[in-house]
Amino acid sequence: MNATELRFDSSDELLARVAWSRLIEPGDERATTLIGQVGPAEALRALVEREVEWLQRFVPRLASLDPHRDLEGVRRLGGRVVLPSDDEWPAGFAALASPPPCLWVRGSVALDEVAARSVAVVGARAATTYGEHVAGDIACGLGERAFTVVSGLAYGIDGAAHRGALASGAVSVGVVAGGVDRAYPAGHDTLMTRLAERGAILSEVPPGSAPTRGRFLQRNRLIAALSSGTVVVEAALRSGSLNTARTAALLGRPVGAVPGPVTSVGSAGCHALLRDGVAVLVTDADEIAELVGRMGEDATPRRRGRAEPTDDLDPLAARVLDALPVRAGRPLDRVCATAGLDPASVQAALGRLALLGLAERDGPGWRVMRAPIPRAAPHQEQARRVVRGVD
Amino acid sequence: MNATELRFDSSDELLARVAWSRLIEPGDERATTLIGQVGPAEALRALVEREVEWLQRFVPRLASLDPHRDLEGVRRLGGRVVLPSDDEWPAGFAALASPPPCLWVRGSVALDEVAARSVAVVGARAATTYGEHVAGDIACGLGERAFTVVSGLAYGIDGAAHRGALASGAVSVGVVAGGVDRAYPAGHDTLMTRLAERGAILSEVPPGSAPTRGRFLQRNRLIAALSSGTVVVEAALRSGSLNTARTAALLGRPVGAVPGPVTSVGSAGCHALLRDGVAVLVTDADEIAELVGRMGEDATPRRRGRAEPTDDLDPLAARVLDALPVRAGRPLDRVCATAGLDPASVQAALGRLALLGLAERDGPGWRVMRAPIPRAAPHQEQARRVVRGVD
Repeated sequence: MNATELRFDSSDELLARVAWSRLIEPGDERATTLIGQVGPAEALRALVEREVEWLQRFVPRLASLDPHRDLEGVRRLGGRVVLPSDDEWPAGFAALASPPPCLWVRGSVALDEVAARSVAVVGARAATTYGEHVAGDIACGLGERAFTVVSGLAYGIDGAAHRGALASGAVSVGVVAGGVDRAYPAGHDTLMTRLAERGAILSEVPPGSAPTRGRFLQRNRLIAALSSGTVVVEAALRSGSLNTARTAALLGRPVGAVPGPVTSVGSAGCHALLRDGVAVLVTDADEIAELVGRMGEDATPRRRGRAEPTDDLDPLAARVLDALPVRAGRPLDRVCATAGLDPASVQAALGRLALLGLAERDGPGWRVMRAPIPRAAPHQEQARRVVRGVD
Repeated sequence: MNATELRFDSSDELLARVAWSRLIEPGDERATTLIGQVGPAEALRALVEREVEWLQRFVPRLASLDPHRDLEGVRRLGGRVVLPSDDEWPAGFAALASPPPCLWVRGSVALDEVAARSVAVVGARAATTYGEHVAGDIACGLGERAFTVVSGLAYGIDGAAHRGALASGAVSVGVVAGGVDRAYPAGHDTLMTRLAERGAILSEVPPGSAPTRGRFLQRNRLIAALSSGTVVVEAALRSGSLNTARTAALLGRPVGAVPGPVTSVGSAGCHALLRDGVAVLVTDADEIAELVGRMGEDATPRRRGRAEPTDDLDPLAARVLDALPVRAGRPLDRVCATAGLDPASVQAALGRLALLGLAERDGPGWRVMRAPIPRAAPHQEQARRVVRGVD
């Protein structure tokens, strides 16, 4: 066989890239490097002309090569092929050691827009109810904050993430290991169709390709490189999603991990990422938006407990409040002895506490305010807690 | 009243410290600093002689002062008073802004030995079943590794930690906010007695003292300063145990936090410590021992998933394995086409796979090894997973 035997114009950039997309396995660094150096058409000519020894391993696949048929296949699905020279080619792919020759895409969303504000929400297929609940919640919250949720269309965390994003009305993108025409698992056929309508499905292998183990692992680098950041929701120690997270970290993207019960092996991978310093601990969409989003715009306030009226008490008043009984009033001199403070300080503190609705006179003495002021119910609760100590 | 009116020899170091222990509130920096500078006896004289204006606030408590009675009280419990000049005084207390004038101790364990190899296992009173389970587990594991577990004897995490440590046969120390004669909560009366027998109960306030809010907060600094490291197992955002953790961090001690479900407000405090970088994520006693223990001796291996026979496959063999069917054998040329590899490479890889028990001949072709070799059952499972892709 030689170049003239190919049933297509191998000097055409699109056709040549489509051909390479079928010839090589995802992540083939040597072939990808050659394509990058001499261009896809020239690399194809070198293969067909048997000019380069190591290229000969692609010869067995030459016979079945038919880029026109592959293009026809994706167009029949309403899809398209995106080339590195296209405006929408994700900029982050430039950092990959082996970028795909082209991308097979179903769905109208522009990939560069996805890349600009997106979060990969990934995790184990064998997810727990907890993991799926959190993934759905996070994806929905990210959708509401106008982030595109990118995931892998698998069962478990991936599926929950896509569904959560769609529920928020946002765009979601599924990056698959096989062809964009093949729902894998088959049970996600409807979900795949919805993503193609409301977001996108993309792959680096042509329609009809099977999702093999190697393709799954390589697919993860596309998820990492496409998204502004990656979050692992739930993953055991050997989950492929850890590989996505590590790739994202290597690419310099922010990586988050959601913790879970330490008694659940399903969260052990997330905990390992956190212990290794690969990921930052995140608990909800707000914290992820802050991690991945635009400085300032997506910032979230630091978490604090519910404010209590006693929070801002000066130390003196706090100590006097500590010294007050909840039942019968205590005389001033005994409050002084209990608090270990002089009468003038105690008197001044009691005045402030009374103003705050935390202390009241009772007969000749003072006690913790009992009569609940309507809006002050929490104060009362707090005041009662005072004499019992706190956590 | 003047010095001669005191019913004890105020120039005696022990009696003077016992007196100050009843006069001041824990954490009183000004009084503590004075005691440190001029000594407890001289500071007491200055108070009784009304020489220092701000010391006058302690006058109301002078009347009830009776150090002999307090000493008698702790001795009746089989306890003792430990002074800063004693060998067993915890060295870490020197770093406190306001170290206690003395410590009230029940139990025979030496405090300096506790300090040398101990972990404060703390957390919320309002703990979940998850939190108590993990606290007990961790404390038991630390006990087995010869760490003393220090905690606060409260309900919830504290109680579970003490019980876990005792279950391992190890020593456990309870640092309480009130007197060492007072179980707080009363429901922990038996636990307190067991700790006094098998470890220690200690406090900075004399027997009979009530556990007030202020004393609870200050008690936490003793837990942090006494222990080699601190671990928060479960804590809401306002839990006092976060304060223990922050104090430990300020004292330069290692701090760990156990994550939990992000859907549980009971773990939000732990997650905040981890996000703030105050604590390191820990999931079990091994990781805590490594964090707190002696370099080398307590190191724990990095967590990995279960090893699989395919782990160490070279990339070529992995790709060929990917290309093999699970059912009927596939001819060599078709394996080459599927794998995108030349016949020589495929043949060599098949040889290695056969040796590893991962591939076998089937008729004229090759397939994934089916006949389960007894010890190779997991290989088989792995091999089957290969063609379905992985997480």
